[in-house]
Parts: sequence; structure tokens; C-alpha cells
Amino acid sequence: MAQKTVKVMFIGDVVGTPGLKMVDLWLKNFIKKYNVDFVVCNGENAHHGKGMSLEALGQLLEAGVNVVTGGNHTWSNFNFFDTLKTHPQVLRPLNYPKGTYGRGYGIYKLPEGMGDIAVINLQGRTFMYPIDCPFRTADWVLKQIKEQIREQVRFIIVDFHAEATAEKIALGWYLDGRVSAVLGTHTHIQTADERILPKGTGYCSDAGMTGPHHSVIGMQIKSATDRMLFQTPHKFECAEDDVHFAGIVLSLDRSSGKTVGIQRIFYPEFDRGEIA
Amino acid sequence: MAQKTVKVMFIGDVVGTPGLKMVDLWLKNFIKKYNVDFVVCNGENAHHGKGMSLEALGQLLEAGVNVVTGGNHTWSNFNFFDTLKTHPQVLRPLNYPKGTYGRGYGIYKLPEGMGDIAVINLQGRTFMYPIDCPFRTADWVLKQIKEQIREQVRFIIVDFHAEATAEKIALGWYLDGRVSAVLGTHTHIQTADERILPKGTGYCSDAGMTGPHHSVIGMQIKSATDRMLFQTPHKFECAEDDVHFAGIVLSLDRSSGKTVGIQRIFYPEFDRGEIA
Amino acid sequence: MAQKTVKVMFIGDVVGTPGLKMVDLWLKNFIKKYNVDFVVCNGENAHHGKGMSLEALGQLLEAGVNVVTGGNHTWSNFNFFDTLKTHPQVLRPLNYPKGTYGRGYGIYKLPEGMGDIAVINLQGRTFMYPIDCPFRTADWVLKQIKEQIREQVRFIIVDFHAEATAEKIALGWYLDGRVSAVLGTHTHIQTADERILPKGTGYCSDAGMTGPHHSVIGMQIKSATDRMLFQTPHKFECAEDDVHFAGIVLSLDRSSGKTVGIQRIFYPEFDRGEIA
Amino acid sequence: MAQKTVKVMFIGDVVGTPGLKMVDLWLKNFIKKYNVDFVVCNGENAHHGKGMSLEALGQLLEAGVNVVTGGNHTWSNFNFFDTLKTHPQVLRPLNYPKGTYGRGYGIYKLPEGMGDIAVINLQGRTFMYPIDCPFRTADWVLKQIKEQIREQVRFIIVDFHAEATAEKIALGWYLDGRVSAVLGTHTHIQTADERILPKGTGYCSDAGMTGPHHSVIGMQIKSATDRMLFQTPHKFECAEDDVHFAGIVLSLDRSSGKTVGIQRIFYPEFDRGEIA
Ligand SMILES: [Fe+2]
Ligand SMILES: [Fe+2]
Ligand SMILES: [Fe+2]
Ligand SMILES: [Fe+2]
Ligand SMILES: [Fe+2]
Ligand SMILES: [Fe+2]
Ligand SMILES: [Fe+2]
Ligand SMILES: [Fe+2]
Repeated sequence: MAQKTVKVMFIGDVVGTPGLKMVDLWLKNFIKKYNVDFVVCNGENAHHGKGMSLEALGQLLEAGVNVVTGGNHTWSNFNFFDTLKTHPQVLRPLNYPKGTYGRGYGIYKLPEGMGDIAVINLQGRTFMYPIDCPFRTADWVLKQIKEQIREQVRFIIVDFHAEATAEKIALGWYLDGRVSAVLGTHTHIQTADERILPKGTGYCSDAGMTGPHHSVIGMQIKSATDRMLFQTPHKFECAEDDVHFAGIVLSLDRSSGKTVGIQRIFYPEFDRGEIA
Repeated sequence: MAQKTVKVMFIGDVVGTPGLKMVDLWLKNFIKKYNVDFVVCNGENAHHGKGMSLEALGQLLEAGVNVVTGGNHTWSNFNFFDTLKTHPQVLRPLNYPKGTYGRGYGIYKLPEGMGDIAVINLQGRTFMYPIDCPFRTADWVLKQIKEQIREQVRFIIVDFHAEATAEKIALGWYLDGRVSAVLGTHTHIQTADERILPKGTGYCSDAGMTGPHHSVIGMQIKSATDRMLFQTPHKFECAEDDVHFAGIVLSLDRSSGKTVGIQRIFYPEFDRGEIA
Repeated sequence: MAQKTVKVMFIGDVVGTPGLKMVDLWLKNFIKKYNVDFVVCNGENAHHGKGMSLEALGQLLEAGVNVVTGGNHTWSNFNFFDTLKTHPQVLRPLNYPKGTYGRGYGIYKLPEGMGDIAVINLQGRTFMYPIDCPFRTADWVLKQIKEQIREQVRFIIVDFHAEATAEKIALGWYLDGRVSAVLGTHTHIQTADERILPKGTGYCSDAGMTGPHHSVIGMQIKSATDRMLFQTPHKFECAEDDVHFAGIVLSLDRSSGKTVGIQRIFYPEFDRGEIA
Repeated sequence: MAQKTVKVMFIGDVVGTPGLKMVDLWLKNFIKKYNVDFVVCNGENAHHGKGMSLEALGQLLEAGVNVVTGGNHTWSNFNFFDTLKTHPQVLRPLNYPKGTYGRGYGIYKLPEGMGDIAVINLQGRTFMYPIDCPFRTADWVLKQIKEQIREQVRFIIVDFHAEATAEKIALGWYLDGRVSAVLGTHTHIQTADERILPKGTGYCSDAGMTGPHHSVIGMQIKSATDRMLFQTPHKFECAEDDVHFAGIVLSLDRSSGKTVGIQRIFYPEFDRGEIA
């Protein structure tokens, strides 16, 4: 009997070698557990906590990831710029100005019989860089995707790499009913607001960080705190301990492409003790 | 038999009349359900979505709140400045510079036999205003609290009103073992990272918004989106629909004051469908 | 004998009633003294220090101004939005996103026999709002201007309303040889870097403020200082004293449109004593 | 016959080797021309355009500079941190938080019979880092200076390294009558607002850049423009051409310490053509 939904796993910012190892160790289990058909993973911090590398890309693809998205830290490793051009599995935010290296969306094959899936990477501007408008860029790319292929792509996943919660949820509403899901990255803290918006778009403000959580969003606690205490530069050092896997699983309806189920994954869970 | 823990309910930013009504309707049920002993509530958006008012304060206290904390929006309603001085149940971030109206911490009575509880309100600086250092201000106030009273206050709750996840978790680590809990407010989106830090401090990056969630963090969707699309002013209008209660319940050990249980509340839950 | 140059007067941000009165009192004298043919004036603060009004527009035009440019404060007075649409003498920064009220450039008649002059209003993004790219918008509008009219417009004045010196001088270099002049506004402090760039474009980072200089960039000193000391809102009050006229006079070559002379005006001069 | 004033030369941000050479070549001439008694020079960009070095310090002192001030770029070269501690001729902004390397003010000997002069280095916070309040830090240090020495120091020069014009002029008013002069640095563009404030404090928003002006505030034009066009990192490269000397000369009354003359120096002058 045919499966009625397409299952997509979306992995939040993978940080450094600990994050890469966690994906390597656990992704295959989650794929099996949830019958995942396609995996999107934000990799902007995979290379020692800052930027991407060809090696990190290889490890993510090897672990089962299909598409690696990026963000502001995509640009942190100059050596990766060529790979952005040559590897269609790697995306950087689409709304960087014309003339920027690499691509910001792609259409990929799902397993046999399921058709195609589009992945779009966008970046916010509030408290970030004044790149092109993510709302208008979304309008543009959705038009492109429709025109580019005869049959409409039913499955469209947006990685919205942004800082401000207002900008994130605003894009969610803006695209509700027009894409399968809008999932946030960049803050490295998973939000608890996963939901299905009224017109069928899956939404979560941030998928969280796959990486070391004995840290300040992936960075050694002391360096991070010293930056705040003294407001002077302190060397970035990737943290190592308390590594968790953070992501979101989506069930997409095979005929409409809409989200019919959304679930956060944070594994293993934090210690929360007991109320009562 | 004596209860072994003190139960604290912490309510995230209450937005406008819908938020106030939600607190009025549901807080008493939660107090009963969790045997809550003390309620702290961030009220910076209680007055029609921006700032506080004497009327909103009255409603919150009437509903069962013990202490109302604030944030950057505390200053949005000039008419409230006097109340900041006269009402010890209202706090504004302590690390506003010397000479600012109002108080930033207080020591309050718990129900009989439980002793006192301190509530400290701090505000972040990243992407916000360059007020005094929240880390150093925390050091200062903890010293004050110890000196001020003979017997040490065992229960200390920090509302850290901040934008950046890095600054929030950094303060969590900084105060781990020194306060009962560091709970974030301001982003209006609840985070899923509630945990007990290694030395016993309860932590969650953001308690979320008690208010209308058919909105952009409490504001009508169209005004908020137009602000982003056009980068020009658009009248703030408080949203009305899809009102949820967002908060955190803590169990604090009666002898050490440490968190032994932390649980998020978001009620009613969002529609998440099923993964199947 | 025919005059060999076109003379343009560019007036920096006019602030409030004091600024309007100064323009009324002194502009005609400067027009006579320098044989000025055309007057461009930034008016974003003409309406009591914040925004524009139909009345302020009338006063500026009456005083001899030909075109009134704007900036971020153009949007401070909602009542002015209709006038932006109906009055071609008023500009707002062109690089606000499509769909914004008003126009961002215009082509105007010079006195008989001199042809036309284009005025372009652009706004920076560094430390401001993430509107469209001012560099690319400049490229677009220069193409428009050439295509729009058969004979090439020789005289093109750019008011670049921006905060960061780097962004201002970068646009100067970007447009060197392509426009008559790039003149900055917004900081309310006149800069001493007026110059003719190598390819003939006149440049000055900021024309300065025409308004009360016993102030903090036009605002009462106490309110402005209190904002900085306390980081809380303090009512904006326009200052009144020590009113100066700040602007720039350009001589443009009649055949090439290039700047052949640039001179700052700040009148009356500040007290500088003597070095001796 | 005794000279009635003390002459102070204040040199704006020296950028890279071109800037250092310009100081070496011309400072001695200016010292002679204006009978300069004491030289303060902002050196935050002396080391190849970013930060300071022991070598650059040596060259500045050798050229006739007495005190080298800093700013946000003081921290760009980690190798210089020890020198901050060991060399009292080097200052960094005083309002960096307690625990930061180096010193933020000093009291220095003037030539025989003239007494002492204090130099204070402060940094702004608007559009910069949330360090300590520059206004309150100024209050503190002026009290220190008075208490530290029996006879009051009459001559006090403040280098206010800040971005926003509002913050600069606000500090000017705040210190009017309490220090000899408040002179701005950091924007690398000289402002034309040098003046003597009503109570005798000399003021100028920015002394400008001593360095290559065929540049974007000292940086190669192409890299700087590409950063703005693409909002991605582009290697910093110090510019080389069109080197100018930018500074301010002050005459201070020997008995009151107040400014009795203030004059900008920008040498050689830019090409400005001719009006008329
Ligand atoms: Fe990241
Ligand atoms: Fe990021
Ligand atoms: Fe809020
Ligand atoms: Fe807030
Ligand atoms: Fe202005
Ligand atoms: Fe402006
Ligand atoms: Fe500098
Ligand atoms: Fe600087």
C-alpha cells in the first residue's frame, strides 16, 4: 500500500565536529524511525563552528542529508566559495544580492514516485545585513518554480535563517498556503511554537542547534561571556560537550503538499526534573 | 505533611486585553493544578500591547499575580511612571542607569512558613539599548540581597528580558548555582530549551507570549508585515485572535532554593497534526 | 555674455520653525550673491523638527526652494503622505521599496536656455533601515533618466541621506563622472570634505543642518542628553537658539554638467577665537 | 616675554603606513608653524589600517606625538595588548568595562613652566558597543583628576571616539566649561563644526583621517564598495593614495585652561575648483 505522506527531516544549525558526529551517529536512526524521505540540514556552522567546508559537506551527505542550507556564516570560510558554485546540494540564502556566489534554491528528486521537492533558503534582515527583501524574494522564487517546471512542485521547504521572531513569524503568515513549511534557523535555540498554520503551512521559529549545548550557542562559555563582559574580541572556540540533535519532522500530504503533521526533535532531552 | 518544594509560576509577556483576559480566566486553574505558591508575570505589553497601566496592573494582581516584571516597553506609557515608584509589586529592569524611575528587584513574602523570595528583572543589551551590564548588575544585586537580610533568601527568580539567545544562555551559565532560575522574556516566542543547569538553576530562554497568536508577536499581521515590506511606520494595532497562555512552572527545593523541576506551559496547544 | 556655469544651491536638513525662518530670511541673499539658478533643500525635519507638512513645503517653495528632498523622517508625519503623491517638487528617498508613497527623483526645468536638471534622493542602509540597495537604485535611475528623455540631462544632483561616512563616500566614488554631485544629509553636522572627485563629481559627506545649533542636532539639549543618560524615551522638543544656515553651492559646467566649483556655506560662522 | 597660551595639536585617526609617513613628514612643520606644545594623536588604525602595534607607536612618538589615543580598533591587534599595559603614552577608551587592558586617561607634563595636561579617551555607544556610559565616566574621571593632584589640572583634552553626531555634540555640551576641549574621532571624515562652546570648551565633531583619501575612509574603494553591494566579507586592504594630514590646533588660556582659539587643519586641501 502506498504511503500517503512524504516525510521530511529538517536539521537545525549543525555546529562543528561535535555536531557533524551527532548527525553521523543519529540521523540514520531517525530516518528509519520516521520513514524519512528527504533531509534538509542547515550547515552554516559545520566547519569548526564557523562556515562550511568541502569536507563537512561530504560528511553531511554521507550521513544521509540531501540538501545543506546556509546563512550569514556561509561566508566565514573563503575556501568554500567555489563549492557553492559547483555543488547543487549546497544552498546559501537566496536573497543575497545579485552577483553573490552560489544558489539560493534548488529542486530535488524525492524517492521514486513522489515527484520533486523544492528547498528555498532565505535570510532575515532585522538585526542582520540589509540584503534583498525576503518577502519579495519569496514571491519571485515561487513564481520561478512554477514556471520552471510543467507540473507544479507540490513540496516546498523554506529555511528562513533569521534573528528576530517578528520577521520569522511574519514570513510564516506571508507564505501560509503557498509552501509546505517555513522553518527557522540561526538562533541555535529551538523554539516550542511548531504548528500548522491555518492554510496548511508547517511552521517553527527555530529548529535549534545540533551541536554542543554546554556552551553559549555552540561557543565555549568563557569566551562568549568575556565578549559580553568586556565588549572586546575574544577568540572563537567551538564547544565540545553535551551534544544534542535538534530538528523537525514534517509529514506532507502527497497530493496537496501541505503539512499534516509537525514534530520537534531534541535528542537526548535536557534534564528537567519533575514538578509535583 | 509539609510540602517539600515551593512552586513558582512564571508568565511570559502578557499582550493587551486578550492577554489580560487569558490570565484572568486561566491563572487560577493553573495555580490550583500545580499548587503554585507564587506568580511572577511579565507585563510590559499588558496595556493595549505597549507598556503598562495602573488598570492593567490591578487586573493582573486581581488574577493572582504577585509580581509584575517589565522590559523595554515599560517606558511606552508615560502615565505609568508614577506607579513604578509607588507600587513595589511592579519591577522594571534593574540595569537601567541610576536615576531611572522605579525598582528592579524586590523581596516578597511567600505563603506562611516558606520564607521570602527575591525577584530580579534584568534586560539584555545585544540588539537593544546600551544600559548597564546585566552580568555585573546581577553580581551587585545578589550581594545586596545577601547583605540586606540576615537569613539568606533561598529563592531567587530572574526575569531576563533580552533579544539575543547568546546573551540569555550566557547569563544562565553565569548565574548557575547562584539563583533559583533564569527565565527569559521579550521575544514573545516560547523556546523549547527549558532545563536544569548543572548547578541547579532552572533555565528557559523565553517563556513566550500570553496573548493573541494569530499575529506577529501580538501585533496585527498586516501592520507588522507592512512595516517589513516598506520599512516605513505603520500604526501598531494589537491583535485579538487565537489567545494562548504561555509560562513556566518551577519546583524549587525548600532548603537549597534550587530548581528540581521545570515545565513549560502553552495552553491550549497549537495544532500540530500527526506525523503517523 | 552668456553665463558659463549653472549654479546650484543645496541646503542641508532644515529643522523646525527656526530653520524655516532662516531659509526665508537668508536664501534670497545667497541666491543673489552666488547667482543661484536652482535650489534643492532637504526638508525632512521642517515640520517642528520631525517630518514635513504642506505648510512647511509652502514656506520653503515661497522662500525660493525648487525641490524639497527627504529622508527617514519624511514618514514621521502621516498627514503628509498625500502631498508626497500630489506635489512633484517633493521627493522621498527613491530606494524605499516599490509600493511606497511618493517619488524619489524628478526632472525639473532650469531657467531659460539651461535645459533640465534631475534631482535624485537616496537613503543609506548602514545603521538605518534595510531598504533597497542605493548603489543599484542609482544605476537604475540613471538609466531611466537617459531613456526617458531624448537629449541627455546634463545636470544631476544626488541627495544621499545616510548615517555612515563609509557608505556616503563609497556612493560618491561609485557615481563619480556619472552625476554632477553627490551631497550628503542626515547627520545634521556639516563635514569639511567638500571636493571635486577625479572624474568631475562634486562631493560633500554632509551639508549640515539649517536650524538651531544650541541643541543636539536640532533637539533641546536636556531631552537629548537624558535619552542618552537613561536610555528611556524623553519627549522630542525642537530647539530654538543659535540658528545657522548650512548648505553647499555648486558651479556646474554647462556643457558637461560636471562640478567645476564647490563651496560650503555655514552662516553665520561659529565662534572660533584665534590661534595666534 | 611669556607665551600666554598653550598650543595643542590633535591629530585624527592615522591610517596605515601612508598615515604614519604623513605624520612623520609634516607634524614637525606644523609644530613649528603653530608653536605646538603638546600633540595628541588617535592611532587606532595606524597598524596597516586596523589596530595598533609597538612599531607604529614608536614611529608616532618619534614623529613628535606625546599621547596616542585609541578606539574600537585598538582591539584589532591582539599583539598590542601588552603594550597597552606597559606604555602610559598609549590610551584606549576609558569607558570599556572594568577589567579591560590598559588605561583610558593620563596626566602628562607640558613643557617647562606650563604645568600638566590630562588626556581622556572616551568611546560612544550609539551604533557601537554597549560599554559604560561615556557621560558618567567623564564625571568620574574629572573627579579623579581633581582629587589625584593637589593643584588642579587646568588643561584637559577629551578624544571622544564615536559614530553618532548626536552623541558627540551631547558630550560637548555636557562637558562645556569642565574640560579644555572635546574633539571627536572615528568617522574618518573631518567635520566643519569646530567652535568654542559658550563656557569655553573647544569642540569639533570629528578631526578627520590622516591617511589615504583615495579610499573609503582608508580602505581600498573596491573592497569597501563590494562589502556594501554584496553584504558579504571582502578582505580589508588599506588604501595608499591621496594622503592628507587632518587635525585640529587649539590655543588654551594658560590660567583658565579654556579654549581661546580652535582651527582645523586639512593638508593639503582637496580640489574644490571655483564658484563664481
Ligand atoms: Fe548558526
Ligand atoms: Fe546564522
Ligand atoms: Fe514584550
Ligand atoms: Fe520587550
Ligand atoms: Fe534630518
Ligand atoms: Fe534623517
Ligand atoms: Fe578609525
Ligand atoms: Fe573607530
